[in-house]
Amino acid sequence: MSLYLALDFGGTKLAAGLVEAATGAVLARVRRPSPGDAWRSIEEMVDMARQALAEGRRARSDVAGVGVSFGGPVDEARQRVRLSHHVPGWENLPLVQEVSRALALPTAMDNDANVQALGEWRFGAGRGVADLLFVNVGTGIGGGVIVGGRLHRGRHGLAGEVGHTVVKPDGPPCTCGKRGCVESLAAGPGIARAARDALRESGRGGKLRALAGGDPAAVTGELVFRAAADGDELALAALADACRYLGIGIANAAAIVDPELIVVGGGVAKAGELFFGPLREAARAHAAPLDREMLRIVPGALGDDANILGAAALAEQENRRT
Amino acid sequence: MSLYLALDFGGTKLAAGLVEAATGAVLARVRRPSPGDAWRSIEEMVDMARQALAEGRRARSDVAGVGVSFGGPVDEARQRVRLSHHVPGWENLPLVQEVSRALALPTAMDNDANVQALGEWRFGAGRGVADLLFVNVGTGIGGGVIVGGRLHRGRHGLAGEVGHTVVKPDGPPCTCGKRGCVESLAAGPGIARAARDALRESGRGGKLRALAGGDPAAVTGELVFRAAADGDELALAALADACRYLGIGIANAAAIVDPELIVVGGGVAKAGELFFGPLREAARAHAAPLDREMLRIVPGALGDDANILGAAALAEQENRRT
Repeated sequence: MSLYLALDFGGTKLAAGLVEAATGAVLARVRRPSPGDAWRSIEEMVDMARQALAEGRRARSDVAGVGVSFGGPVDEARQRVRLSHHVPGWENLPLVQEVSRALALPTAMDNDANVQALGEWRFGAGRGVADLLFVNVGTGIGGGVIVGGRLHRGRHGLAGEVGHTVVKPDGPPCTCGKRGCVESLAAGPGIARAARDALRESGRGGKLRALAGGDPAAVTGELVFRAAADGDELALAALADACRYLGIGIANAAAIVDPELIVVGGGVAKAGELFFGPLREAARAHAAPLDREMLRIVPGALGDDANILGAAALAEQENRRT
Repeated sequence: MSLYLALDFGGTKLAAGLVEAATGAVLARVRRPSPGDAWRSIEEMVDMARQALAEGRRARSDVAGVGVSFGGPVDEARQRVRLSHHVPGWENLPLVQEVSRALALPTAMDNDANVQALGEWRFGAGRGVADLLFVNVGTGIGGGVIVGGRLHRGRHGLAGEVGHTVVKPDGPPCTCGKRGCVESLAAGPGIARAARDALRESGRGGKLRALAGGDPAAVTGELVFRAAADGDELALAALADACRYLGIGIANAAAIVDPELIVVGGGVAKAGELFFGPLREAARAHAAPLDREMLRIVPGALGDDANILGAAALAEQENRRT
């Protein structure tokens, strides 16, 4: 039996999936907006899990276990949520216990970046790799580390946090309270801020300005990518800067882990060479000399199913352990 | 049987020891300057190993194996030296084969930073810790990572290289060819260079200037530590700057590994609070918020025996595996 229910609690969206682990096939997907409250999110998710079973024409007794991806830190034994940066009411909530009780199935949980790392390693771009560094780039920057074919969580479940490594001391403020973290320089909001500042200071960036309806305040990370794809020089410069700092962060993490492969997932995984070209160049320029030629950086392969497939991989791993 | 021969090939010195692994006792030590040539170093070392056996009143047949610490990169299967940055003739030399043939004992090798990490974990400040980050600060800055009670070498044997992570883009040039590596800012020569530059630019630093015989060019990292211990403000500022960048490098590495403990060895391990006070403060200030209170940084406990005890720990580990 290799069927798993995969539940993804995101900041704004909930998703449930029914996954056949042997093939990596997603037999059913259910997505809904988050109701914006912890307990109501759990109720909604349990209902979505039942709907996924019904859509996949399977019974609960066909399922070996449940994997949960949570969009925020979970405690070291991975039984409780620590907090959500987006939704109130999650503090210290015993989510594993609640889900396993409601669905009467063994349940395992981890934060979304660790889950995605596991998913890319089991089903995606990192199949067959022993040591893997995974980085997710989106609104924030998260990461996960596979060592010797196992997810390395670290002492407090916080390993792989490439986004909060400091690569520009005295740089821009980060959501975490520090300055010059990779996330503050290379995630969507950081790219947008840098491009907005540049637009206000120069007459260039006509295509980006037009995309933003003439209002620099309306610039988003996504618009910077679109303008860069259209050849806008100001947008390309903002993107190159972001890639430079992300490249330093990745090269630094690679100097610690010395991975076989680096997988970069999240929205940027779809951006192609526009993003991966400058990123690879920056990472190699800042890698240790012996690492330089060996640094392999590839886009994540799981797209929108990364959390669902990762949660299924987590459930499968826990199932095998018991 | 828990007796091991431990051989340490350093850039300028050779050391051999006879170690009882059950207790961590060094039964005999032999030290000689390096003859400055690869093959002559091996001959010399084999002679030193025999002398250590004689001094410890043991026969070769009492010994379970040999551990070799090499002061430079070794290849991924750890059979060959890649190169020495100090001594010519080491390129691609099959050191494990030569030593095991000459001494007729099973032999294991690793680079000195990995060996020291293993030594601190087995016999020193990191005993009983599952996940450990080790950093050696001296003329250069090396490091090693223990994950789940095992040395994590990484894909190319290059894991744990905290010294060559970049923490100040466009900073001073590093021996590795990059700029702004931790090593360029926080190892002995980097501290000395910063203090020399400050001496030339200001009238302060009277105690440091006196220690250097009035000649800024004569300032060394060690003199900066001595002047700082004597309250010299310029030396204290240079040391604080070095601790800041080393602290960022350690906090960044901790964000990737999430270790239970960070051990800092090398010459600075003896410097006490003068060094560890500012280092802890800098590392905590740059750690991820959830890590901040949990970051534990302690001095290495093995002193001058770090390489010998580490090499014995390596030999013991290999012996148990077979």
